[in-house]
Amino acid sequence: MSAQPPDPNDPVFALHRGGKMAIASTVPLASREDLSMAYTPGVARVSQAIAADESLTREYTWVQNTVAVVTDGTAVLGLGDIGPRGAMPVMEGKAVLFKTFANVDAIPICLDTKDPDEIVEIVRALAPSFGGINLEDISAPRCFGIEQRLDAAIDIPVFHDDQHGTAIVVTAALRNAAKLVNRKLNDLQVVISGAGAAGVAVTKMLLAAGVGDVVVCDSRGVVHTGREDLNSVKADLAGMTNKNGRTGGIADALTGADVLIGVSGGQIGEAALSGMNRGGIIFALANPNPEVHPDLAARHAAVVATGRSDFPNQINNVLAFPGVFRGALDARAKRITEDMKLAAAQAIADTVVDDLRPDQIVPSPLDSRVAPAVAAAVAAAVR
Amino acid sequence: MSAQPPDPNDPVFALHRGGKMAIASTVPLASREDLSMAYTPGVARVSQAIAADESLTREYTWVQNTVAVVTDGTAVLGLGDIGPRGAMPVMEGKAVLFKTFANVDAIPICLDTKDPDEIVEIVRALAPSFGGINLEDISAPRCFGIEQRLDAAIDIPVFHDDQHGTAIVVTAALRNAAKLVNRKLNDLQVVISGAGAAGVAVTKMLLAAGVGDVVVCDSRGVVHTGREDLNSVKADLAGMTNKNGRTGGIADALTGADVLIGVSGGQIGEAALSGMNRGGIIFALANPNPEVHPDLAARHAAVVATGRSDFPNQINNVLAFPGVFRGALDARAKRITEDMKLAAAQAIADTVVDDLRPDQIVPSPLDSRVAPAVAAAVAAAVR
Repeated sequence: MSAQPPDPNDPVFALHRGGKMAIASTVPLASREDLSMAYTPGVARVSQAIAADESLTREYTWVQNTVAVVTDGTAVLGLGDIGPRGAMPVMEGKAVLFKTFANVDAIPICLDTKDPDEIVEIVRALAPSFGGINLEDISAPRCFGIEQRLDAAIDIPVFHDDQHGTAIVVTAALRNAAKLVNRKLNDLQVVISGAGAAGVAVTKMLLAAGVGDVVVCDSRGVVHTGREDLNSVKADLAGMTNKNGRTGGIADALTGADVLIGVSGGQIGEAALSGMNRGGIIFALANPNPEVHPDLAARHAAVVATGRSDFPNQINNVLAFPGVFRGALDARAKRITEDMKLAAAQAIADTVVDDLRPDQIVPSPLDSRVAPAVAAAVAAAVR
Repeated sequence: MSAQPPDPNDPVFALHRGGKMAIASTVPLASREDLSMAYTPGVARVSQAIAADESLTREYTWVQNTVAVVTDGTAVLGLGDIGPRGAMPVMEGKAVLFKTFANVDAIPICLDTKDPDEIVEIVRALAPSFGGINLEDISAPRCFGIEQRLDAAIDIPVFHDDQHGTAIVVTAALRNAAKLVNRKLNDLQVVISGAGAAGVAVTKMLLAAGVGDVVVCDSRGVVHTGREDLNSVKADLAGMTNKNGRTGGIADALTGADVLIGVSGGQIGEAALSGMNRGGIIFALANPNPEVHPDLAARHAAVVATGRSDFPNQINNVLAFPGVFRGALDARAKRITEDMKLAAAQAIADTVVDDLRPDQIVPSPLDSRVAPAVAAAVAAAVR
C-alpha cells in the first residue's frame, strides 16, 4: 500500500483531525439534585427495574437508539486488509451518516482480531449494549458465516451493509431502470460481475425481487454447477442462478444479456459489452474505477449508474442503511428479514418514481426524504 | 431483588427515559462535497495514512478522546450482580459525567459474560477503538486479575474506578483531614473496614502516600498473616499491613486507631468506635447506608465524611476519574501509574487546601476547577 503522509493543508486531513464525532449528554448535571437523579443514588432504581424486567432497557437507556458499526478491518473500501486502526476513519464516517440521516446513535467498533469464532463471540457479548449490529468491511467469504451465526445468536438486528445495503440500493435502481426501458424484472437477463459480499447479496435479492435469471461471474468466469473450485457460498449461488447453464467468461455471460451489474472492480472491455442486448442497463459500481467507464457504458446501454458522486445515478449505500436501522429500531425488530429489505428497496425506488429520467433512477444520497420513507417501509414490514 | 415497576410520573424514571446520551457529528454533511470528504472517496486517504503509521490514529480519529466504560454487571453500586442490562443506566451516567466534567467521550460497554478470560480477550480486541478503558462495577476478586492482565496486554490506560477512583479521593480527603487535625500521614493508625475492590486499593494507595500503618478488616475480622482463609489478594494485603500483628474483630482493630475508613457497608457500632483515639477521622463511605451514621461518627471523631450528597464532605469518585482520564489522554499515557494517581489525589486536596474546614476537606463534586487541575497534575506525572 502506498503510504500518504498527511499534509496539514490538505482539506481532507484537516476535516478528519480530532475525529468526526463526539458524545453528547442529554441530561442536566448542574446541581447536586441533577447528579443524584442521573447518577447515584437515583440511578439505582432504574437499574433495579431493568434487572427485574429486561425489556425496560429499551425505555430507560440509550441502547434502543444505538447501532454498533463493527469491523475487523479486513476489506475496507477498496483498500483491503488495512487493520482495525486504518478502518476507524471509515467507521466514524459511517456513524456520522447514521446520525445525520436517521438520528441513529452509531458507535464504531474496530476489532483487533480476524478470527470468525472470536468475532462472533465478542459481538454476542457486546449485544446488551446496542440496539443493532451493522457489520462492515469484513472480507468474504468470512462475512457470510459471521453474519449468519450472529443472526442466530442474538435477538437484535444484524446487517452486513456491504452485502445488504448494496443489494437494497441496486434492487431499487434496477426497479426504476427497468421501468424506464419498459421491461419487467422477471423478463430480464442479468449478469453480475463479482461474487464477493456484494455480488452474492445482490444476486439473492434480485432473485427474491423476481428477476428472471442471473448469471454470476467471478475472476475465473461464469459461476456454474460444473465448476469444482467453488467455495460453499459460490456453490450455493451456482445452484440458484444460471438457468441456461452458461460457461466461459464474462463475454459469454453478457451475450444476449439485458443488464450488467459490476461489483468487483475488474475491468470489462468493449468487446464483451458488444454482445449485450440493445437498450439495456449497466451499473458499474466499483470505486473509484468503475468496471466500465460511464461514457463507454452509455454506448452500450440506455441507463447507466456508478458508485461515484461525480456521475449521474450514484448507487450509494447511504440511501439504505440509515433508514433500515431506523425502521428496525423503531419497530423493535429482532432481525432484518428479506421482506424488510425488499420494502426498503421499494421505498427508495418510489422516492423518484414520479420523475424518472435516465439520469435519475435513484434519489440523491442527500435527499432527506429517503431515510424516513425507508424507515417507515421497513417498520411496516416487521412481522 | 425487589422489582420496582417504573411510575411514569416518577421524575427519576422520566429523566432516564430514552437514555441520557447521544452521538453528535462534528463534521458538515450537507453537500456532495461534504460527503466525499467525510466518507468515500476522501476518507480512503486518511485510512491509508493510518494503516501506514498507526500513531496517526490519535490525530485523525475520535479514538484519542474516547474511553470505554466496561462492566460485566456483577457488582453494580450496592445492588450486586444485576447483569449487563441492569448495569447500563449506571454506565451511561458515568459516561455523561465523563463528558460534562472533562469533555471525554465515554461509551458504555456492558458485557454478557462473567468469564475473566473472556472479558480480558474482548477488551484486548476492542482496544483499537478507544483511548482508554475504565473498568467499572466488576466484582472482587475477579476485578484485580482482569485489570492486571489488561494493563499488561494493551498499550492504553486501564483503570478500575471502583478501586483507584475511590482510593484517589480517599487519599485526597485524608491528606486534608490530617492537616485539619494537625497530624502527619506517617503518624496515623488507620483502620479500613472492607477488603473488596475499594478496600484493597485504598490500603495500597494510603501506604504509597506514606500513611504509617493500616489495619484491614473483612467480614471475618482483622486481616493478618495468621489467617488461612485469605485469597491471594488478601494474603498480599496481610503482608503489607498490620505492623503490630493485631487479631480479632473491628473493635480490636479500632482500639487506639486515629482513622476509620468504611468501604464495606457493614455497620460499625458505638462500642467499637469508643476505642478510637480522640480527635480522629471517620470516613463512612457505604451508600445509601454509611457504616456509621454521621451524627454518631461526629461524637467519636473531629472530621467526618460519607459517600452521600446530603451530608458534608462527600467522597465522590467524580472528583477523580474525569480528570484522571483527561490527563492521561492529553499526555498520551500508555498506563495509569501510582505517581499519576498520587498526583491526582494531591490536586484534589489542593483545590480546597486554602479554605479547609471540618465540613470541607474535599471540593464539591460540582466544582468545575477540579477536573482541569487533576488533568494537569496527571499529565505532568506521565513519564
